Amino acid sequence: MRKGEITRQAILDQAANLASRNGLAALSIGRLARETDLSKSGLFAHFGSKEALAVQVIDHTAKLFAEQVIRPALKQPRGEPRVRELFEKQLAWSGLQPGKAGCVFVALSTELDDHPGPARDRLAQYQGEWLKLLAGCFRVGIEQGHFRRDADPDQFAQDVNGVYLARHHAKRLLLDPKADERAMRAFETLIEAARPEHTTPRQR
Amino acid sequence: MRKGEITRQAILDQAANLASRNGLAALSIGRLARETDLSKSGLFAHFGSKEALAVQVIDHTAKLFAEQVIRPALKQPRGEPRVRELFEKQLAWSGLQPGKAGCVFVALSTELDDHPGPARDRLAQYQGEWLKLLAGCFRVGIEQGHFRRDADPDQFAQDVNGVYLARHHAKRLLLDPKADERAMRAFETLIEAARPEHTTPRQR
Repeated sequence: MRKGEITRQAILDQAANLASRNGLAALSIGRLARETDLSKSGLFAHFGSKEALAVQVIDHTAKLFAEQVIRPALKQPRGEPRVRELFEKQLAWSGLQPGKAGCVFVALSTELDDHPGPARDRLAQYQGEWLKLLAGCFRVGIEQGHFRRDADPDQFAQDVNGVYLARHHAKRLLLDPKADERAMRAFETLIEAARPEHTTPRQR
Repeated sequence: MRKGEITRQAILDQAANLASRNGLAALSIGRLARETDLSKSGLFAHFGSKEALAVQVIDHTAKLFAEQVIRPALKQPRGEPRVRELFEKQLAWSGLQPGKAGCVFVALSTELDDHPGPARDRLAQYQGEWLKLLAGCFRVGIEQGHFRRDADPDQFAQDVNGVYLARHHAKRLLLDPKADERAMRAFETLIEAARPEHTTPRQR
């Protein structure tokens, strides 16, 4: 990577962090200049308008998500192992260490849902693609015999998204120490319920 | 209700709507004055500082939530009917008609999770109480024999919260017309999985 590109990525990291904490609406070029100790005119040259910056923050986040979550998961065998890795890498991705902001996508989803425009469109595109990817990998799991023929991949994707969002809420707002453990259990219950009955009978 | 109190509630409705759309951070007394065509000094007299207004918006929302969701649900018989009504009234509550902002609590949860202070504390208190209420009503359902003895009420509460959050995300960001239907199905699956096996055998 060229030095300019490295700098650009570092600035976008910072911008994504700020957007996750305070919202994209509060992320002006001026604010970013103050936070990064860079010149406002330099940032304008790099990123253009506030609206263009917002889209670049989302693209940047999606690129990191692809690198840290999607790409490693696609190295796993098709079907259940891949579905499982997608979920586990996503949990790891949200980087919920103390002092760090949570998942940028979660923060921006509730911020942008009421605000039509290029940033909202881009975010909805990536989030829609993520759910389609989860559903698609699950569908392959059906073909491989890992999951029941009558299971609904889009239902599974929305359900897994719920497990992720509820864990984010419990962990970050409620500071619930059991949030992760419950998310893992909820995911296992979804997987178990999707298995063909003869493979893994439910033991209740 | 006195006229002053009615006015106050109407202003808080407007403030909650603004907060849900643009965030509490963007909700200044000056902004609220412009939106409501009231005088800034009058609003200061009513609500005090921006920080005090934020807490009052959360209290106001919690009061509406208690009236529209919790109180009607508590009229239902204990156990499963009450748990079911809590969930269904919550779905109705988020008022997801076009042109309306979504659930204020969902929007504020991701906004405030990184911002320690009275508003965050108050929101976390109400959201924690809501999950405890869901868990408590589920626990009574265990005692009544509606649910399995070994089911985990706090797990159930986090799972139901996930169903709600994923529906909010699918409906409002992704504009997915099947969001509601999937949320209902996910809730039924949770209830079904919680039932004592002899009452409702799983048919898969």
